[in-house]
Amino acid sequence: MQLDLIIYDTELLTMEGGGVGYLADAALGIKDDKIAVVGNSKEILAEYQACRSIEGKNLLVMPGLIDAHIHTGIALLRGLAQDITGWMEEGLWPFSRQLDQQAREAGTALNIIEAVRNGTTLLADFGSNLEGLVDWHSRIGTRAVLAKTINELDNSSEIVPGKLYPFDREKGEKDLAESLEWLEKEEIPERISFFLGPQAPDMVSRELLKEIYDRAEEHGIGIHMHVAQGKREHLQMKMRYNSRTIPWLNREGLLNSSLNAVHLTEANPEEARLLARSGAGLTVCSGSIGIIDGQVPPLQEFLAVSDRAALGSDQAPGNNCNNMFNEMKLTALFNKIKSQSPLPLPAWKVLRLATIEAAGCLGLEDKIGSLAPGKYADIITIDLKKVSLAPVIRHPLRNLVPNLVYSAQGSEVRDVMVAGNFIYRKGRMVNVNEEEILQQAEREAARIMERVDEESLDRLSPLYQAQREGKL
Amino acid sequence: MQLDLIIYDTELLTMEGGGVGYLADAALGIKDDKIAVVGNSKEILAEYQACRSIEGKNLLVMPGLIDAHIHTGIALLRGLAQDITGWMEEGLWPFSRQLDQQAREAGTALNIIEAVRNGTTLLADFGSNLEGLVDWHSRIGTRAVLAKTINELDNSSEIVPGKLYPFDREKGEKDLAESLEWLEKEEIPERISFFLGPQAPDMVSRELLKEIYDRAEEHGIGIHMHVAQGKREHLQMKMRYNSRTIPWLNREGLLNSSLNAVHLTEANPEEARLLARSGAGLTVCSGSIGIIDGQVPPLQEFLAVSDRAALGSDQAPGNNCNNMFNEMKLTALFNKIKSQSPLPLPAWKVLRLATIEAAGCLGLEDKIGSLAPGKYADIITIDLKKVSLAPVIRHPLRNLVPNLVYSAQGSEVRDVMVAGNFIYRKGRMVNVNEEEILQQAEREAARIMERVDEESLDRLSPLYQAQREGKL
Repeated sequence: MQLDLIIYDTELLTMEGGGVGYLADAALGIKDDKIAVVGNSKEILAEYQACRSIEGKNLLVMPGLIDAHIHTGIALLRGLAQDITGWMEEGLWPFSRQLDQQAREAGTALNIIEAVRNGTTLLADFGSNLEGLVDWHSRIGTRAVLAKTINELDNSSEIVPGKLYPFDREKGEKDLAESLEWLEKEEIPERISFFLGPQAPDMVSRELLKEIYDRAEEHGIGIHMHVAQGKREHLQMKMRYNSRTIPWLNREGLLNSSLNAVHLTEANPEEARLLARSGAGLTVCSGSIGIIDGQVPPLQEFLAVSDRAALGSDQAPGNNCNNMFNEMKLTALFNKIKSQSPLPLPAWKVLRLATIEAAGCLGLEDKIGSLAPGKYADIITIDLKKVSLAPVIRHPLRNLVPNLVYSAQGSEVRDVMVAGNFIYRKGRMVNVNEEEILQQAEREAARIMERVDEESLDRLSPLYQAQREGKL
Repeated sequence: MQLDLIIYDTELLTMEGGGVGYLADAALGIKDDKIAVVGNSKEILAEYQACRSIEGKNLLVMPGLIDAHIHTGIALLRGLAQDITGWMEEGLWPFSRQLDQQAREAGTALNIIEAVRNGTTLLADFGSNLEGLVDWHSRIGTRAVLAKTINELDNSSEIVPGKLYPFDREKGEKDLAESLEWLEKEEIPERISFFLGPQAPDMVSRELLKEIYDRAEEHGIGIHMHVAQGKREHLQMKMRYNSRTIPWLNREGLLNSSLNAVHLTEANPEEARLLARSGAGLTVCSGSIGIIDGQVPPLQEFLAVSDRAALGSDQAPGNNCNNMFNEMKLTALFNKIKSQSPLPLPAWKVLRLATIEAAGCLGLEDKIGSLAPGKYADIITIDLKKVSLAPVIRHPLRNLVPNLVYSAQGSEVRDVMVAGNFIYRKGRMVNVNEEEILQQAEREAARIMERVDEESLDRLSPLYQAQREGKL
């Protein structure tokens, strides 16, 4: 077989087997959009011809990282809502109310570039505007599992604390219909797929939620939903169904392997185990939930039952970065601190949560997440000459994996390939003009900020006061 | 006055006043090794001439970051001791026993480069080999407050768990004498100064510790010491003095403003407040202590009484990186998680802990830590065109400070200047060949690893087993 590309004389973390699948003196061969062969470098070079080959002596090659939950559409609001208690109402809303389609798209482009620079090849992107998401993931070249937000709240101003949300079924049905339309569209790249995205169990009616699950099953796709996200959600569930979220979902038959459940900030250990036993996936957003709530979700309890867990960067106004190296590190460290022990979430485990296990959460375990023949060639290369990884020690104890998790910042990523195509190569975006995207983000942010009502900001955000005090 | 350099049309975080001291449309003028003028760009350009000027439109200029506790000498052991309970005995010792002078120096050079790349201008560097520390800080151009380790333990193999350490007074006196010799040496750059470095209150006798304090007072220098570092220390203090560390230091008159007390991992809230009331400084090493012990020291209790606190990156085999952006972020987040609230350690506060307050811990508050006329020109510039900081929002709410702390990784630093000299400029080390230092680190690490006794490693380190299981 004539290959398109061989990366030879390199080291691999294949993520095959139960650990990290380290291979020395290795090569990886790519044909079309797939990995064709993985193994010993000399043997592969002897057996295969390739149109192009890359010597990988100072590189580490591994599967691309997977961000299993992100809202790229609000990226322009980075850094506007930290260090306050009412993150959403006081921090986010004064700004997010002003976002329009054009601003959301500028944010999406910005956030995807940031993700790619830091080694992310797949984003499970959740937002109101599928058109913008499809467009930018297509143009930049990322793999994406997109979900349009489906909810029955016409707008956030109808939310009155302590009262049941007024549902507008028509709004919810419209969101669902729009989501389903995208399943039929032609000319969408194969690497872009869809989940259905009910916003949260308290934001859609029981009837609509069941309909969403039925439609997802019909189309053989998954459900991407915020679950047990906060006290506000549990208050709604209590008032509406006299139950906490996860037991209610269980009772209604809505916990199963089609579900990628996100957050679990307010879930207790028993609820985490219940979710795990159902076969559903769990995505935790350590950075975002750490900053917004100071919480560490019950990931350890979930992992005691199931490996189907992933990491997500959530969103820039909360997190504030979109970088899976950051999420791996914070997840490992937060869980050590929660348990007051160095043992929970070791480096190899969080690396799996950002690759092969995340693929499982998105129903893609046979297609991506590890370096194995037949899987898509979604790979990244790490520059082992970067000071944060030095010295590289291979014998008697390898330090590559601990340093990837505890020392690397993201800028160690040299190349990013999705489905056999480089989309980032030696520090440069291949398919888009990064400078233009950055400029557009700055322009759009400035335009949106002009619309922000400073009086309500003054009333709402403690940060506005902090700024007057010289703290920003 | 003719200035050497003006950076104009820029934004500053001066860190003057109680917050971050933000100035827009600003300029900074430098003459010799000091900051000569700070203020409005137009006014400064009208009033002053300079040999050289830099347009700072897309830069943020701020004081260099201060790493108030680091052991650069063990940097070659990066990533060899994570995710295990016996970090020091099982993880570190099988390797650190093999380190010799040459390997320590290679580690020091590596670690300083990493620090500078990430915006650190001053390292409070603690180690056994002052000659190597002086040499590399001199050559690279960093400011340094160096402390030679003083202890009365001849070697770590004498430590038997549960027994009093056998003190060797002669060894301790020799360490102290060597420390004092360096105070008399000529031809040491002004930017390099010394503290005395008793390793910990359990590792020197009461008599020697008092002598160290007396010598420090005579010479007008400070004390850099690990305090309340762990259960092992408290067990020794209990056996020797029937007291916990901090109350004992207080009783002995050893808590005062000359002390930079590091860690406090095992201190309780009352002990943290006692330290704070004494006027001593506290340096916390969030990354290192998080990874090694899963602990968050009582920084919040200390800060309720005193601002004299700083951050340290500790060491590469524990942390695993030497990056004050990492420390700022982890300190903010760990404290939020400890308190289950987004409020503790806001962005502006950790930025102060890494700059002006750290200067206070090292007795240098009048010389560095903020941008003010008469202070040394220890400054860094941040490239505001980096995607992790985009978009930069200035009105109605500035997002610069939250994004520096919660999003920046360190690679946003463009230039680093110490005492008026650029030591890192547009991504390149100015005074040393970085490539050579990296190669030397790799060679030295390989040499040391050849000496490691694999049998004892097999017996001691759970990581050796993890490696066989494919987890490294």
